[in-house]
Order: sequence, then C-alpha cells, then structure tokens
Amino acid sequence: MSILDGLTSPAQIRDLSLSKVEELAAEIRDELVSTVAVTGGHLASNLGVVELTLALHRVFNTPRDRIVWDVGHQAYTHKLLTGRRERFCSLRQSDGLSGFPKREESEYDCFDVGHASTSISAALGLACARDILGGSEKVVAVIGDGSLTGGLAFEGLNQAGHLKKDLIVVLNDNEMSISSNVGAISSFLSRKMTSDLFVRFKKETQNLLTHLPGFGRELVNLARRAEDSLKGFLTPGMLFEAFGFDYVGPIDGHNLAELEETLQNVSRLKGPSLVHVITRKGKGYVPAEANPSLFHGVGPFDAETGEVHKKAAAAPSYTSIFGRTLVDMAEEDPRVIAITAAMIEGTGLQDFAKRFPERFYDVGIAEQHAVTFAAGLACHGQRPVVAIYSTFLQRAYDNVVHDVCLQNLPVTFAMDRGGLVGADGPTHHGVFDYSYLRHIPNLTFMVPRDEVQLRRALATAMAQDGPFAFRYPRGESQGLELPEKITPAPIGQGEKLREGKDGVFFAIGTMVGEALAAAQALAEEGVDMAVVDACFLKPLDRTLLMAEAQRTGFVVTCEENVLQGGFGSAVLELFEETAVDARVLRVGLPDAFVDQGTQQELRARHAINSEGIAERVRAALGRPPQSAAG
Amino acid sequence: MSILDGLTSPAQIRDLSLSKVEELAAEIRDELVSTVAVTGGHLASNLGVVELTLALHRVFNTPRDRIVWDVGHQAYTHKLLTGRRERFCSLRQSDGLSGFPKREESEYDCFDVGHASTSISAALGLACARDILGGSEKVVAVIGDGSLTGGLAFEGLNQAGHLKKDLIVVLNDNEMSISSNVGAISSFLSRKMTSDLFVRFKKETQNLLTHLPGFGRELVNLARRAEDSLKGFLTPGMLFEAFGFDYVGPIDGHNLAELEETLQNVSRLKGPSLVHVITRKGKGYVPAEANPSLFHGVGPFDAETGEVHKKAAAAPSYTSIFGRTLVDMAEEDPRVIAITAAMIEGTGLQDFAKRFPERFYDVGIAEQHAVTFAAGLACHGQRPVVAIYSTFLQRAYDNVVHDVCLQNLPVTFAMDRGGLVGADGPTHHGVFDYSYLRHIPNLTFMVPRDEVQLRRALATAMAQDGPFAFRYPRGESQGLELPEKITPAPIGQGEKLREGKDGVFFAIGTMVGEALAAAQALAEEGVDMAVVDACFLKPLDRTLLMAEAQRTGFVVTCEENVLQGGFGSAVLELFEETAVDARVLRVGLPDAFVDQGTQQELRARHAINSEGIAERVRAALGRPPQSAAG
Repeated sequence: MSILDGLTSPAQIRDLSLSKVEELAAEIRDELVSTVAVTGGHLASNLGVVELTLALHRVFNTPRDRIVWDVGHQAYTHKLLTGRRERFCSLRQSDGLSGFPKREESEYDCFDVGHASTSISAALGLACARDILGGSEKVVAVIGDGSLTGGLAFEGLNQAGHLKKDLIVVLNDNEMSISSNVGAISSFLSRKMTSDLFVRFKKETQNLLTHLPGFGRELVNLARRAEDSLKGFLTPGMLFEAFGFDYVGPIDGHNLAELEETLQNVSRLKGPSLVHVITRKGKGYVPAEANPSLFHGVGPFDAETGEVHKKAAAAPSYTSIFGRTLVDMAEEDPRVIAITAAMIEGTGLQDFAKRFPERFYDVGIAEQHAVTFAAGLACHGQRPVVAIYSTFLQRAYDNVVHDVCLQNLPVTFAMDRGGLVGADGPTHHGVFDYSYLRHIPNLTFMVPRDEVQLRRALATAMAQDGPFAFRYPRGESQGLELPEKITPAPIGQGEKLREGKDGVFFAIGTMVGEALAAAQALAEEGVDMAVVDACFLKPLDRTLLMAEAQRTGFVVTCEENVLQGGFGSAVLELFEETAVDARVLRVGLPDAFVDQGTQQELRARHAINSEGIAERVRAALGRPPQSAAG
Repeated sequence: MSILDGLTSPAQIRDLSLSKVEELAAEIRDELVSTVAVTGGHLASNLGVVELTLALHRVFNTPRDRIVWDVGHQAYTHKLLTGRRERFCSLRQSDGLSGFPKREESEYDCFDVGHASTSISAALGLACARDILGGSEKVVAVIGDGSLTGGLAFEGLNQAGHLKKDLIVVLNDNEMSISSNVGAISSFLSRKMTSDLFVRFKKETQNLLTHLPGFGRELVNLARRAEDSLKGFLTPGMLFEAFGFDYVGPIDGHNLAELEETLQNVSRLKGPSLVHVITRKGKGYVPAEANPSLFHGVGPFDAETGEVHKKAAAAPSYTSIFGRTLVDMAEEDPRVIAITAAMIEGTGLQDFAKRFPERFYDVGIAEQHAVTFAAGLACHGQRPVVAIYSTFLQRAYDNVVHDVCLQNLPVTFAMDRGGLVGADGPTHHGVFDYSYLRHIPNLTFMVPRDEVQLRRALATAMAQDGPFAFRYPRGESQGLELPEKITPAPIGQGEKLREGKDGVFFAIGTMVGEALAAAQALAEEGVDMAVVDACFLKPLDRTLLMAEAQRTGFVVTCEENVLQGGFGSAVLELFEETAVDARVLRVGLPDAFVDQGTQQELRARHAINSEGIAERVRAALGRPPQSAAG
C-alpha cells in the first residue's frame, strides 16, 4: 500500500520522516497527473505546490490552524491530504469534488474561493475574529504572485500591515499568473528592481567615497563590504516591509526541509509576516514544466505523452473565433485595441498580441484597472475591446457604470464564458451578466446565437459610438461556415427564425438553438411555435416582440441567465410599459448558485435545454409530458 | 477688478508674476469660501490645492496637456481657472456646475469622476492613446493619499511602472482621506516606515564597522556621512521606485515657486514619475484648517465664523439613527462588528468607533477589501456590518456575490445614501442597488420606510443567519419617536398601511410615504387606492402582494431606483411566475443617469414624488391631470 492510500487526515503525515514525505510527494504527483489526465483541471499550479502543501500541513495544526488558498485552483494536494483521496477521481464532475476549496466539502477548507486576490482580506478577517474570541490558532494565506497584481490583495496587505495582527502570508512565486506575469511588481519580485536600486546606491556611496580622504585598500574593502551588506538589505522584501510585514525569503519551494524550517520559524513570529517561496509550475511532470500555460487549466490528456486529447472533428471554439475576428477588425481599423486581465489564451488573444503588440495590453489580474484603463483609451479616440470572462467582469461592475457608461464611452466588453461554464462550477458560471449589466444606462448589449453572429457582434460594436457588451459561451461553436464579409447588425433589431401560430419563443444567445429544437419537437406534436431571436438584450426589439406577442398571445422567453432581472424580466417590463396583454412564461436559471457539471448536464438539470423548454410549453398548454429524448 | 474676475482661460495666468499669482490664490480662496458657504460642497480639499492647481495650469499647456483629477472633489480651483468663474455660484445646483470634473462641461475636464482611485488608470489610458496617435501632450494624474489606498490605484501604478509611458502622477498628500488616513501605506508616506528601515540599516552598518580595524575619527565620520546619505536614499519614494516610477519630493504644496520649478523639471523626464506634494486640507481658512473632516463635504455655513447652518428643528439624519442603533446592538451582542471604507462620519460610526474600538475597522478607501474582510470575520462567528454608501458598494459587487453570498455568510450591508443623493449628482446617486443586488442568490434585502423600520432592519439582520442588505436615504429622518425595544421583522413580510378598493400601491422605502400622500390626494378625488409597504425587496411578500393584486386588479409599484431590474420588475416576475392577472404600472427612475439637484427637485422632475405617482394613476384611469400642489 502506498502512503497516500492510507491517508485520511493530515495528522498522519506530521510524524513521517522527511524521506517518507518525499516519497509521498512523488505519489501525490502521480495521482495528480493520472486523475487530471482523466477529469481535466488545473494541473501545473497543483504540481508546483506539492511540497509547500505538505510542509504547511506538517508545520501547522490544521484544521485548527487555518489555511486560506487564493484562487484555490492549487488546492488539489490539500484535498488529497485532508480525507478526500477516495473521492478525488470525482474532481470537477457532477456531484463530485469541487476544483476549488469549499467549506461545505471539508472542515479543512476555511474560505470558498475561485476568483483571485481574496485570500489576504479573508485571512485578515479570520485573524481579527480569532483575536476578538481570544483564540490562538495560526492563520495562513497562500497567494500566487499573479494574484498579487489584483488591487484587492493590495488593499488587504495595506490593512494587515496597519493592524499588525498575527498573520502569515505565503507568497507562492512561480513567476507567472496564468499567462506569464506582468506589471512592475513582477519585475520587482524578480529582483530586477532591487538591482536598479542597488546601482543607484552604489553611485551614491561612490560619490561619498570621493569626498573622503583615501585610506587605500582598507577603504576599498569597507566599500565592498558595505555593498554586500546592502545587497542583502535591498531584497524583494523591501516592498512588503514597506507595508509593515516581516519578510522572509526567497526560499526554495521544492526543498521540504528548508520549507518546514522556515515555516516553523515564521509561525513563532508576532505580527504579519510574508514568506516568499519560489516554486515551479508543473514541477515534476515534464510536459507541464515545458508548457505550464497549456497545463494551467487543461482538458483530458495522455498521462504518458502529455498529449491533450482532441475531440474528433471539433468545431473551433467561440474563443478562437472571437480572437480571429478581432485580428480582422484591427487590420482594418487602427483604433482597435485589445485588453486582457491575465487571460491571453483564455480569451483567444495570442494572435492579436503577436500581430499588434503595440495595441495589446495584458494588465495582469486587475479587472477594475482593465476597464478604467479602457475608458482612458476611449476618451482619446481609441476603440478598446476588453476581452474578459463574464464572471470576472463582475469585479469591474463599478468601473463599467462609473468610468465607461456614465461618460458614454465606446468601450467594448467581449464577455467570454457567458452562461454555464461547466466543471469550474458556481464561482465561474457567467449567469448574472444580463442582470448586472442590463440596468446600466447607455450600454448596448448584444447576445450572438452562434459564431456568425459573434463576428457580427464585434463588427456592430466597432461601428457604433458608445459602450457595447456582448457575451458568448464557453466551448465549441456550431461549426458554421463564416462569411468573409461581416456587416454590422442594426442596433436593437431581432430576427424571426421560425413561423408559428400557437405561440412564440423569445430566445437569446445559446437558447435560440434550444428554442428552435423545442419548436421542432412541439411541431411534431401539433403545437406550432414561432421562434424569435431577440439578438439584443438591450435595447430590445420592441416592435418585433410586441407584434409577435400580440399576434400569438403566448410568449415563452428563454435565457441562460438567472431569471431575476434578466432577459425575460426585460420582456415583462416592455409589456408592462406598452400595456401588451399576453401570457408570458420565462425559462432560465433559478435564484440559486448553480453547481458544477458539464454544460449539457446543467442545462438539462435546470430544464433550460430544448427538452425542458418543450416541457414548459406542454405543461402550459395542458398537454401530457413527454419522456426526455436522448 | 480682481485678477480672478478677468480670467477666462488658464493661458492668461501663465505670464503673471509669482506675486500676482499669489494674489490670485488669495482671491480664489475667498471665492471658494464664499461660494461654498452658500452652496455647500467640498471645501477643505479645494482649499488645500489652490497653489497646486495654479502651478499645474501654469506649467502645463492645458487643455492640450491633460490633467486627470482623482475623485474630483478638489477641482473647484481648476473650474475657476478654466472659464467657469461666472457659473461658479451655480455649483452643485440643479442645472448648475457639477461638483466634479465633467467632460461635457469643459474641454479642460478630460475624465469624468466622482469615485476614488481611478485617475492613474484613466491617465495611463490617455498616455497610451497619445503614443499610438504619435502625440506629445503631457498627461498628469492628481491623486490624494487617501485614494492611493484603493486597489484600483495600485493596479494602475503596477501597469504604469511596467509600461514605462511618459506619465506624471502628482501625489497630493494631506495625510488624510476623508476621515484621517489609515493603512500601512499612510505610515509609509509619513516616513515612519522609512525610519524603521533606517534603524535596521544603521544596525547593519554598525555590525559591519565592528568587524573592521579602527581608523579613529575618520571612520566615525565616514559612518556618519554614510548614514546621512542613506537617510536621503530611504525616502517615501522607495515604494514608488519599486513600481518603476521616478520619485520626486516631498515638496511644499503651498510654495508656488518650488511647485512650479519641480513640475517644470518633472515635465522633462521620460517614463513615469511621481511628484510627492505635501498640502494642508482647509489651508488658508481657519475653521477648515481646524476641522478638515467637518469641512470635507459641508452644507451651507457662515463664512465669517465657520459655523455650519443648522436647520430649525431638524430631525436626526438616518445616518445618525443607524449609528446609534448599531451601538445599541453591539452593547447586546459581542459579535457585532462595524466596518467602514474611509467614511466614519459619513456613515455615522464615530460613536461606535469610540465605544468599541476593538470591534471597529476603517479599512481606507477599499470597498472590495471591506466586503471580503467582512466575509472572513463572518466565517469565524462574527456579525460584521459593512456601513457603506450604495454607490460605493458598486465597487464590491463581485465580493458580495463571490465572497459573501456564495458562502451564505451573515454579513450585513447597511447601505446609506440609497436612492437620489442630491447635489453630488450622477456619480453618487444610489439608484442601481435594487438591480445589482436583487439577482444575487441567498441575499435578503429589506428597505425601511422610516427610522423606526431602519432600526428594525438592523435588528432583523442580526437575528438571521445569512447575507442581509438594507438601504436608507441621505438626509433627515421623519422625526418619529423611536421605541426603546426593537423587534426583528418577519423575513419577507409586507405591511398594508391603507385600505382601498380601486387599486393598490406597492411601495418600498422612501416611496411608501409618497404613495400614502398620493393615495390621500386621490381619495379626495374619489379614487380609493390601498397602500402596501413591501418592506422587503427580497424575498417579496408573495402572499400579500398576490392577494392585493387579485383583490383590486390594479397595481402601481413605486421605487426610488431605476426601473430596469428593480422592485417593480420583481413584482412583474412574481405575477408571471404565479400567473396572477392584474394591470401593473411601475413608477421609478428611467434608464438614464440622473443629474444633480436637490432630492426633492429630482423626485419631482422624474415624477416619483406623490404628485407624480398620483398623476400616473389619473392617467391610467382616464382622469384629467391635476395642477401640481405645493
């Protein structure tokens, strides 16, 4: 039996010899690779923190002591060590283990997470509560250097340094966030800045020496030793010391003995301290070390060769079609600028970045800045496109309201991962954007139903003169042929895709295809539903929607968004405003956080696929339910 | 004629002698005091930047060169210098000058603002656009040390340092944000940190010296001079240099000659630079220097004595009643914790802070952190109350979703300045919160109609076990007697306040009083409207609302929020879901940013006061309109 097989609690690893722990580390790496090869998931980040996680659970008395993981996509080893080995094969599957820490999953998970940069704030909250309650447990935040570019992390550092609470921040520095890291802070951590400062100091001491009487060799020696002393003094830690943290490091994050000794020492310090640990993404698995960006979040792959499984004849992803279209636009229009918050590959901007480096900005994990920076660019004649996941734009809600829409600036929000995203689960579903954007004045919001319309959405954004958002789903496109020439869509104009006399589906985005399929199925049962693609969430095609509602008297709205404040709600508002009298049913997601699972599973579970939609109509018309097809 | 009277453009001040400019500075201070004494507004911050603003407009070639003001409540002198002297008396009045920079007001205003910490991001956008277009204008961001605690500012600094664009950041350091400043960064700026570092360096050099053969007096001299050199080296600038900025300062922000010379020098630097300017809030007006917090945002006052006008027999503000109630709660419940983001006075927490210093946290201008920090506290048994303006909670939308509601944590959001706020205008109205919070799962949202209900809302929040929000308006309460004993409200239960058979008003918050008045007026015309206070935006009182709608068949919803996705929209959703068939009219704010003006003026303009509501009913019932009363 392997060591890992017998593990049910981290208490069991605290008495192991170092060499046994190293054996365990190797077993864990095998388990990570073989499991993620099947389930897909975050691999590179997890391989990088195996020793760090072991050291943390050996030095700290978890679950009494608290470990707060930032982002949480690096907590797989933590899960393996804390009684979740058996269920590890269910990782990211429907009803399985979450890919992130989750309090309801384990008492060892002390803060739910998925988005970046929250750990210092949360850990500081835990530390303050501990002190109020008179506790003595340790609180440790583990944050990557990428997450440190987020302003929230800085806000947390600033208050933690001020309050001087006992709090340990472990900086897991792998010199990249998801793509390679950016920003001044990253060059600071790499000690480039330190050396710049050092050069300046050297100049100053030289000036000083020239003004003194010479003492020959001794003085040169003195100067040299002063230099050495200063070199040690001007460390990357200076920044954190400026915030009131004790800085320890950098230390080798794959050397267990060094890690444990350092963490032991740090655990005895009073006040806030920061341990700077250097790790390597993908460590111990050659394909992941060679291409950590590919193995950041990866689908199923061949564990032996590292080759990622390609689905047969897959259509290109929406993401890649967006990326390609943006390059096309930028060729024609010198005002087009692309902005990403540390998601170059995730948002399909690799080609753009190569082709137009001077018009491409990766701002780091800093969504707020991405949007306000775009507003600045737009103020001076540019056409910035912020390519961002729907869930991450949540962090820049105020910037969309206050910096973009209030000034009516032509900033475009290309929202990838709109709707259900699948295995990443509740922290990552993009199911609130209709509701958190629809009420913002001046914003136009288009929702393409397929890749042809996606290309059109971008062209439409570039052709008009105000804030513009469009969202598209994660995953494969429909495999349609893409016309070379793209014409902008008329703002606020919907499209009738199917005739029908018994009622009408008003669908938007991904739900248009589902509504068409539902209409097809119902037609075979003698129910004749029309299908309208609303095309725009805002402004609605008032004329078309009102006419269709009046014609049929029966409307079913379909959206992949929570029902509260979403598309169906907009239709209800329109009918209230215009006193249209029609029966309306709304299909969409409920007022609850949606769990993980494949997109297909989740759409079925919440009855927003064609079968679910058809059943709603049958029920409304008093017809018997059908057994679900396929 | 004074110098100020003849000014129509900043070009006119560029050739003035320094002594003339000093004369002008005095005239400007008089103008600021005499105008704000009448209009109310931000005084202390404006008095602090008179010389700085003069120097900026003399050194830089505005409007070609761009000045981006952070927050913008310090731009009054800028307005006086840029052709807005004549209209200055209309400051913050309906149809008058905005209290903040506004692009549509002047070509000298290059970015609209009102919320903090946006200037570096926006200025960087302007600088990048300039470089793409091949321009050569200078871009200057002016940011206070308070705004620097916001994570967005840090995100901007981080990218600006990385990109190495020509960009000047003027740090206006008055050692306070709105209340006195907090956080590690503030002690850093005050050079406390520097001196800590210096002490450490001194120890290191002493160690070094003991290991060297003695050279008597000369060596001591050398050590002393090394110390002096180091003292200059370890400046507050270190932090900014760590971000890749050239640091210049600190300089006296009231010494025109020094300011102008420094800005001249800095304007010739390449790459990003930061000028650290020390100013004094309230400078030159004794009452404001003595109490800068009071004169931060102040109502009309006596210019001679500095005494703030008290309205006769004014009822206490909602803010003060909230503050008092929170103290009461904290007396009884040791889990109650208060959190503010640099708004101690604004949110009425002065007494709490004094009474329970160990349970009070001012996190600085860092709304995101405030919320995630609260989530951490709640995770460990506390009952944090985040007291925050509705408009500023916008910045923490994702933290509410991802850190609080996803984990279903008992964090309370006490949202002050809900609804229309008056003179601060579109950047500050709290008219989106129903829409940006209503769709978040697990959140309960209560809206008290008066101060008795406000106290109850807080008690209700503390009595239940999940995320809870309530909002209340800016300004005076109703003057009701406050019962000593507060009982929690039953969650999701509304209250019928008036009987009526012809229809029913569903009102919420401030609109309950307006609906009652409208019902009164209509009753005199023979229209008999019932009034229901919904009390909760979420969950709705389904039973009561459905019963009343079915009983009367005619519902008018009333809310002080945009109509898109708001309270009326929730009622429409309920009726769709439950197939209630009733005529519904929604009264609320339109899909547009609302301008400045008094709350009363704005409610009248948008027909959400009692007259407007009554007119809607008359029109719906085909009755003739009435001329507006009083």
